Amino acid sequence: MRTVVWQSLSETQQESVLERPAISEGANITAAVTDVINAVRSQGDDALLVLTEKFDRVTPASLRVSQDEIDAASERLSETMKQALEQAYNNICKFHKAQKPQPLKVETQPGVVCEQVTRPINKVGLYIPGGSAPLPSTVLMLGVPAQIAGCRKVVLCSPPPIADEILYVAKLCNIDEVYNVGGAQAVAAMAYGTETVAKVDKIFGPGNAYVTEAKRQISNDFRGAAIDMPAGPSEVLVIADETANPEFVAADLLSQAEHGPDSQVVLVTPSPIIADKVADAVSRQLKLLSRQEIAVQALASSLVIVAESLTQAISISNFYGPEHLIVQTKNPRELLPLLDNAGSIFLGQWSPESAGDYASGTNHVLPTYGYTRTYSSLGLADFSKRMTVQELSAEGILNLAPTVVAMADAEGLDAHKRAVTIRLDALEQCGRLDNLSN
Amino acid sequence: MRTVVWQSLSETQQESVLERPAISEGANITAAVTDVINAVRSQGDDALLVLTEKFDRVTPASLRVSQDEIDAASERLSETMKQALEQAYNNICKFHKAQKPQPLKVETQPGVVCEQVTRPINKVGLYIPGGSAPLPSTVLMLGVPAQIAGCRKVVLCSPPPIADEILYVAKLCNIDEVYNVGGAQAVAAMAYGTETVAKVDKIFGPGNAYVTEAKRQISNDFRGAAIDMPAGPSEVLVIADETANPEFVAADLLSQAEHGPDSQVVLVTPSPIIADKVADAVSRQLKLLSRQEIAVQALASSLVIVAESLTQAISISNFYGPEHLIVQTKNPRELLPLLDNAGSIFLGQWSPESAGDYASGTNHVLPTYGYTRTYSSLGLADFSKRMTVQELSAEGILNLAPTVVAMADAEGLDAHKRAVTIRLDALEQCGRLDNLSN
Repeated sequence: MRTVVWQSLSETQQESVLERPAISEGANITAAVTDVINAVRSQGDDALLVLTEKFDRVTPASLRVSQDEIDAASERLSETMKQALEQAYNNICKFHKAQKPQPLKVETQPGVVCEQVTRPINKVGLYIPGGSAPLPSTVLMLGVPAQIAGCRKVVLCSPPPIADEILYVAKLCNIDEVYNVGGAQAVAAMAYGTETVAKVDKIFGPGNAYVTEAKRQISNDFRGAAIDMPAGPSEVLVIADETANPEFVAADLLSQAEHGPDSQVVLVTPSPIIADKVADAVSRQLKLLSRQEIAVQALASSLVIVAESLTQAISISNFYGPEHLIVQTKNPRELLPLLDNAGSIFLGQWSPESAGDYASGTNHVLPTYGYTRTYSSLGLADFSKRMTVQELSAEGILNLAPTVVAMADAEGLDAHKRAVTIRLDALEQCGRLDNLSN
Repeated sequence: MRTVVWQSLSETQQESVLERPAISEGANITAAVTDVINAVRSQGDDALLVLTEKFDRVTPASLRVSQDEIDAASERLSETMKQALEQAYNNICKFHKAQKPQPLKVETQPGVVCEQVTRPINKVGLYIPGGSAPLPSTVLMLGVPAQIAGCRKVVLCSPPPIADEILYVAKLCNIDEVYNVGGAQAVAAMAYGTETVAKVDKIFGPGNAYVTEAKRQISNDFRGAAIDMPAGPSEVLVIADETANPEFVAADLLSQAEHGPDSQVVLVTPSPIIADKVADAVSRQLKLLSRQEIAVQALASSLVIVAESLTQAISISNFYGPEHLIVQTKNPRELLPLLDNAGSIFLGQWSPESAGDYASGTNHVLPTYGYTRTYSSLGLADFSKRMTVQELSAEGILNLAPTVVAMADAEGLDAHKRAVTIRLDALEQCGRLDNLSN
């Protein structure tokens, strides 16, 4: 881990050490993904089967996973595992249910009533990556808010063979259809539909460079689908003062580092002693990890920043805008009002990132790569849309008319004005104008 | 206006009549916009001045509009106009203030507290198009939520010369800086910053094909900025039953048609008589309009659909997903729970679209082009971001540990597990584990 003293750097150097490595997209990936999308659009299920055989080296019995297979998966799982998944499910449900918006109704002027109503997005698609280990936690993070929002159709794609844990959570979340499809082809199938795979309105979930590029391409096509948020490597920033437990901080940094070689890991502390002790603890703990090789690569580009003060440490964090922000200081809650641009915040020594990754109740799908400045932690709102409503009474249109008429005049929009005056004329003709004016 | 009887169409024909015309982006526009963005990034203010002279044929005294000029604009405006703008401002404030989220705090398990906190997006840029008439209403629709959300820096770009009405509203909304820049160059300047123009985190507002393309390009670059929502031509769908006033319906259709030649205008009614009467009224009223030529073009591709029933009319609307949805039926409020996929809904005969366009209090920046299925009416949420927070006590981590450990095992993430067990070990060492377990 590289250590820098913040005050010793020029402003340009400060910006440069916090700069995230560029994501190399590569023209290869773009073109390959376009080919996959075109194949799925023109050949449907046939393309999915060919691509699955090619990329996943599996020939699934059918594209859709049957209810029998889902039931069988549940039976194979240990009770311990089921209980863990159910506990996580319950916590995530509680926190996401609490996000249900209150009805909003305001009378802005007498007779002018404005409302905001929320509706679920009708059809959503969840992408769950395959790879070395199954990710049931991601099924929970996407499936629970979809279920609570009340989306009418929820489908899930994952490369075969799909792990029992994933199928079990899909059942918990009442997901309608599960498909044996992964990669860019899964994204294309959900965006455009095939004979078997349902077309959806919005696609959620993480994935490799091909999945990310497919999401980008289909979201730029209005016939495609919307997507959750831009993707980037996972990252953590820890703010620690002299009261922090260096072993805990090291464990938290390492739990981020093991995610992938491109994970970003940053410690900011006003205490040079803590900086040293954490670096030390990281080296020691690293040796105990099964994913040591991955963590070593991530740590190679990781950073320890020695700040002048806790206030400066907070500024550095707000400037960087980490996906995960862990605060291990004497009074972490006092700092909360000052913290900005973070996906999810972990307050105090008993709140490791892995608690939120799995089971505290918050969502682990978070903006990263600096998108915390403008994007939100995934939540119920992302599975819903807000519509506004207005209802004017005769009195309301009368009260609002002078304002609309003057503004329509200023903007030269004649018909906009007439839509109001034609109603005033009608009120006048039936003698209601005088009644209302009095 | 073309009239179709819904039941007489095949499913494919039904989909095809409701299909929106493709937006021709054109490689020309893409390349021209890339050139503009590159020029602004490399030459900053100099490029802005050259491009403003080229496209707007104006050489502004300075890129930034001075406070004196803003004050002078206020003085030139009539009292009537100021009052209208202030009334609209007040209504929009009331409705957007009501959107402030409630604090959210849930104890999901004993000792596991999860929260959602909302923060304003720090720096936002508002784009206000120029053209034949000024659009002070759009300044209100963007400036008010930015002000209420508490964005720290709000800047506005508009092609010079900027109308007095726009400057007056900028003052009402306490906008920090106003720049004499329009087009793709304005979007580039706000996305990347120049010597004079502040770099912002997110850009809002409508514009022509160049502005739209510039927003698309800068939002695909993580060094650029986020944007409000995808753009498309404006549109209205009216659901009217036999009780509707055909003159009102015609006036509403025309107020949409005058927006632009690409405006989409649709009437859906279960009453063939209303269909005829509205078509008739449209022809008559059309002749009275100053923007007749534009409206005629829009009406050429507009549609009257005769449905079998009100229920079918609602299905058609939900399938089309209009930006503006006007409901002129006997009991419009009863239909509200059935309505979906609309940007803003206008209930009843006294609620013309122009009321919402200007002053009812709702926002007129709305998803269009079918994006109502997944995007929301612009609101306070778009000027803010949600972060989640978790704080676990020693009891909390103890309660959550079995769940996290089991799930980390399933996902093969060793260090995730260790971040929890290292804390349990510490609790055990200091003898707290027994106390907590009892």
